[in-house]
Amino acid sequence: MYNFKNDYSEGAHPRILDKLIETNLVQQSGYGEDEYAQQAKAILKERLNNPDAGIYFVSGGTQTNLLVISFLLRVHEAVISAKTGHIAANETGAIEATGHKVITTETADGKLRPEDIANVLEAYALAPHVVKPRIVYISNSTEIGTIYTRDELKALFQFCQSHHLLLYLDGARLGHALTAENSDLTLAAISEYTDVFYIGGTKNGALLGEAIIFNKPELAIDFDYAIKQKGAMLAKGRILSIQFLELFKDDLYFDLAQQANALAMRIASAVREKGYTFLTESTTNQLFPILPKKVIERLSQHYQFYNWKNIDDEHTAIRLITSWATDEEKVEAFIRDLQEA
Amino acid sequence: MYNFKNDYSEGAHPRILDKLIETNLVQQSGYGEDEYAQQAKAILKERLNNPDAGIYFVSGGTQTNLLVISFLLRVHEAVISAKTGHIAANETGAIEATGHKVITTETADGKLRPEDIANVLEAYALAPHVVKPRIVYISNSTEIGTIYTRDELKALFQFCQSHHLLLYLDGARLGHALTAENSDLTLAAISEYTDVFYIGGTKNGALLGEAIIFNKPELAIDFDYAIKQKGAMLAKGRILSIQFLELFKDDLYFDLAQQANALAMRIASAVREKGYTFLTESTTNQLFPILPKKVIERLSQHYQFYNWKNIDDEHTAIRLITSWATDEEKVEAFIRDLQEA
Amino acid sequence: MYNFKNDYSEGAHPRILDKLIETNLVQQSGYGEDEYAQQAKAILKERLNNPDAGIYFVSGGTQTNLLVISFLLRVHEAVISAKTGHIAANETGAIEATGHKVITTETADGKLRPEDIANVLEAYALAPHVVKPRIVYISNSTEIGTIYTRDELKALFQFCQSHHLLLYLDGARLGHALTAENSDLTLAAISEYTDVFYIGGTKNGALLGEAIIFNKPELAIDFDYAIKQKGAMLAKGRILSIQFLELFKDDLYFDLAQQANALAMRIASAVREKGYTFLTESTTNQLFPILPKKVIERLSQHYQFYNWKNIDDEHTAIRLITSWATDEEKVEAFIRDLQEA
Amino acid sequence: MYNFKNDYSEGAHPRILDKLIETNLVQQSGYGEDEYAQQAKAILKERLNNPDAGIYFVSGGTQTNLLVISFLLRVHEAVISAKTGHIAANETGAIEATGHKVITTETADGKLRPEDIANVLEAYALAPHVVKPRIVYISNSTEIGTIYTRDELKALFQFCQSHHLLLYLDGARLGHALTAENSDLTLAAISEYTDVFYIGGTKNGALLGEAIIFNKPELAIDFDYAIKQKGAMLAKGRILSIQFLELFKDDLYFDLAQQANALAMRIASAVREKGYTFLTESTTNQLFPILPKKVIERLSQHYQFYNWKNIDDEHTAIRLITSWATDEEKVEAFIRDLQEA
Repeated sequence: MYNFKNDYSEGAHPRILDKLIETNLVQQSGYGEDEYAQQAKAILKERLNNPDAGIYFVSGGTQTNLLVISFLLRVHEAVISAKTGHIAANETGAIEATGHKVITTETADGKLRPEDIANVLEAYALAPHVVKPRIVYISNSTEIGTIYTRDELKALFQFCQSHHLLLYLDGARLGHALTAENSDLTLAAISEYTDVFYIGGTKNGALLGEAIIFNKPELAIDFDYAIKQKGAMLAKGRILSIQFLELFKDDLYFDLAQQANALAMRIASAVREKGYTFLTESTTNQLFPILPKKVIERLSQHYQFYNWKNIDDEHTAIRLITSWATDEEKVEAFIRDLQEA
Repeated sequence: MYNFKNDYSEGAHPRILDKLIETNLVQQSGYGEDEYAQQAKAILKERLNNPDAGIYFVSGGTQTNLLVISFLLRVHEAVISAKTGHIAANETGAIEATGHKVITTETADGKLRPEDIANVLEAYALAPHVVKPRIVYISNSTEIGTIYTRDELKALFQFCQSHHLLLYLDGARLGHALTAENSDLTLAAISEYTDVFYIGGTKNGALLGEAIIFNKPELAIDFDYAIKQKGAMLAKGRILSIQFLELFKDDLYFDLAQQANALAMRIASAVREKGYTFLTESTTNQLFPILPKKVIERLSQHYQFYNWKNIDDEHTAIRLITSWATDEEKVEAFIRDLQEA
Repeated sequence: MYNFKNDYSEGAHPRILDKLIETNLVQQSGYGEDEYAQQAKAILKERLNNPDAGIYFVSGGTQTNLLVISFLLRVHEAVISAKTGHIAANETGAIEATGHKVITTETADGKLRPEDIANVLEAYALAPHVVKPRIVYISNSTEIGTIYTRDELKALFQFCQSHHLLLYLDGARLGHALTAENSDLTLAAISEYTDVFYIGGTKNGALLGEAIIFNKPELAIDFDYAIKQKGAMLAKGRILSIQFLELFKDDLYFDLAQQANALAMRIASAVREKGYTFLTESTTNQLFPILPKKVIERLSQHYQFYNWKNIDDEHTAIRLITSWATDEEKVEAFIRDLQEA
Repeated sequence: MYNFKNDYSEGAHPRILDKLIETNLVQQSGYGEDEYAQQAKAILKERLNNPDAGIYFVSGGTQTNLLVISFLLRVHEAVISAKTGHIAANETGAIEATGHKVITTETADGKLRPEDIANVLEAYALAPHVVKPRIVYISNSTEIGTIYTRDELKALFQFCQSHHLLLYLDGARLGHALTAENSDLTLAAISEYTDVFYIGGTKNGALLGEAIIFNKPELAIDFDYAIKQKGAMLAKGRILSIQFLELFKDDLYFDLAQQANALAMRIASAVREKGYTFLTESTTNQLFPILPKKVIERLSQHYQFYNWKNIDDEHTAIRLITSWATDEEKVEAFIRDLQEA
């Protein structure tokens, strides 16, 4: 059985493990004050073209989302998300547990546009009997594999700025988004067109770790208190900073994502050649092909994946995910099995 | 400069890194459903002599404390802690952030006794105008290096049971407590005489990780929801389970703690021989010697440690911590420097 | 201008004011321990045919909802509501502010049925990555004027019982629901077929006040702590108990509601006679007629009401509310003006 | 039996009931938008000599405290209170339930001074491992009957301003404080030397109600959302505004408080004449005489009061409270009984 269920089935890229071993007995300050953190932040600020960015390393995506959102909202404020957004669909009410409503809006492709936000603002106009929208939460790539273009992100950011809204981007799979063939965004552009975002490590080669970036440093004042309070400050913060130091000291982060995308695109081509369609137009490492149930049954004898959505009596959309660690030969085998199924 | 500030200045015991490398590319289920977790839990249950224990691995102590306490308390209930308790003194209001008061009580040695709890119950009798005490939080070893004996723990547990209170033990340094020369407790006894506790990995050889143990499995029902909600569920849960698998598959966990204690005791002997006293009677890896300020000044040219408490114009209590990774030669050098100072 | 905007534009039924004056200088215990509270509770228990019910008086509906729901839920649990439900639409995220998600579901008529709940349970099956539904919240009458029949309520309650769900009924306008011409429910039946509910006073003759009823007393244990903690325990609790004592010592509560309904039905008949339709099939004191915008414009010269929903370029649904205090002559005038418009 | 237990044993001053009756059937907007609110606010702003003050009426003191404090604090911030402060001692963890720690400090007389705050700031210096103090909470009169002078308040306010702290004053018994014979404070001075405070109605003649005053209007932006969210926004807000309209349209509020103080001072004189001492030096309507237990036993045959604190085997401090509604003849009778006891 080979696992296409997710992009966290394996450990870390070997270079990261090597670095952990190499630095293992060097004494370092705890709680994020280690030298590797300083080095990793310096490198990231350059990539972001933002020397003033506030950068923090924590261990996971749900943790990041609840930290950032609860830190930036006041008691009566809320966050807007696509209904498919991770904070709305997959985080066990983590945001609500910090006291805030997640306002959801239906989308066709998992992406929010200015008109979606305008509709929410209109629906939430009856102050003070409704919460006050304050943050717009988006994911890039989205939970269904789609990505934002530079123009889309810029338009959304400008809308937010003109409506006293903060734009926060969940980059759990940011590498895959930025290296997608149809992407025209860069880390620097993301830093320019969002207020806060995070760069996901866990799903792209790290053992664990996400890098939170406050593009406007004034938003980050006192954020370290929140990290400690929510239990997200590792005593051995060095573990987290080493992940990002290694991923970004050259192009490893992007190379790994591109590799995952490329394998996904090979599968996508095979799906299309076979005449099947997709639930969403993904150009990243998550694919949602709609396959005959009989085909799915045969594939599931050798491969693990999620049955995502029942389409009709004879078809289901499945979810296939590739990663930096995906075995190319298994992809080839999967394609052959698909062709023969 | 050598660092005696804490027990998390280095990485992990080499055997843990080796295991991470060995298992790195084996595909595993995410979110704590990996095989290593099953193996580690099986080993721990045997050590605990409690086949029904509910066991969960998370990444840090503050996270553990807020998870357990907020999960077990209802809205109007509170937790009792020594004033020196970590949840009261060092966690940025993490418990209050989940909605609950931490009731503190002064102690001489960081330990809670039945009479301390009885006093709190009396002070909190004016229902419903005060919170309702429900959990007693203790640490072993305490934040000032002292430990509980078996009789003390048993008496406290029995008091809790007869007053509808849950006893929760913070074991951030449980290894050091259990291997202290004057300890008569075992993991199995801890499991018998507490409702919930945790075994600290971070401060005793792990890269990161704490093992939460619900001794009564009915208390643990649905706890995985809370882990996810608070952002404590690592996608690559394998990282955490491998720490405990390696630490407990033989006596590594205890050996490392004993080694840390032994080095601390060597320093303690030297302190005593030199005629100095201690702020607390520690038999574990945290020492609080009271030294002349001039001596401290000289030592601080070569060693890092905390100035813990000003005693008088000429004396200060400092905190020295040893760990599994402490260099024996540096300990010897420190003792020589102390003798000569 | 006459106000049909809501049922809280006036003060209290004169009998309540008389009772406040009569008892004004009688010394009473504070915080709900007054004699009137005991008397009012005794009367209500008889009406409910439930001598063990736990009864508490608080000042408003949002307060009631957040108190009950936050008290009954554990951290990872959530409440299900119709999208039109007051907790979802009109309470400024009050439930989320206590840490819990409100799961909403679309309905045609504001009412929840077993199949709606079944759908939610199916959508929230991916434990522990989603919250755990635990309370079903319904309103009777609903926020759009519709009511539950006995069979509907019973079926929903049985579904809840067989799925480990609590059924909580918001009775802000319970009097209007129970006295609607097509209602076959009674207070006793509500007590039988829900776990918790409240009897709204504010919108039916009281100065302020809602009576929370725990039909199963074991659910109410310690609830007074929560009332105090959320700032809902009035020092002069007598004010609240006197409202319910007066409303329920005879049939005043029902008479007032019936009177409000009757006036609404007169307007409804006139609307129908004129050939207009309604947005919802209300038999209670809230009407949502769909009128030509020109007619609305003329009516709004003499009457205040909400424009509820735009229907098309020429029509809007408005909301008209009658109450125990509505002036019958104003109703007649409104009907004449409607006929002539 | 006559009740000296508290100042909320009776209803409201008759003028308030008269006004409720007089205005009962006048239609008004709900949720605090009534005309009486506008009138009452205009009067208060004049008294405060602060035309820009943000004023809000809610129903009780605990509600007020949790509303103001949770609205002004960010997640990592905390409030400082005397150990005897109402938020620390008598509100069932209401502040903690909103996510914030209450830092307590011992005082001799229930009052906080700059040096107390300085000590807290020093103890909470280890950022980010401790919460960040942000609000200083004081009560005037305090929970033990003492009051602040103008100089004391000014000094505390200036300290707060120079340390980025907000000063919030709980005025549950503000009338009694301002009319104490040794008070040199006025409403206008309170408005000048605090950031936020509230004027208590419940304990000085109102049926219910507290007036929250934001002296700096920028702090109050969006506060109405919080009022709604915490369930504190009464549909019939008129009830609250009428209390303050009537209490402040002339000097009723101050006259009632002065009358309560005067009766307390008569009792205090009698206590002193008899040779007894007091636990605290109260000049307001709360007295804490230390009496022989035998005397207490005899008095308690005819009067209700709290046994506040055991002093020694033969003496207890009791709490006696007078109010606007206290019967002068009962006070005389009490004094006679005390003299004879």
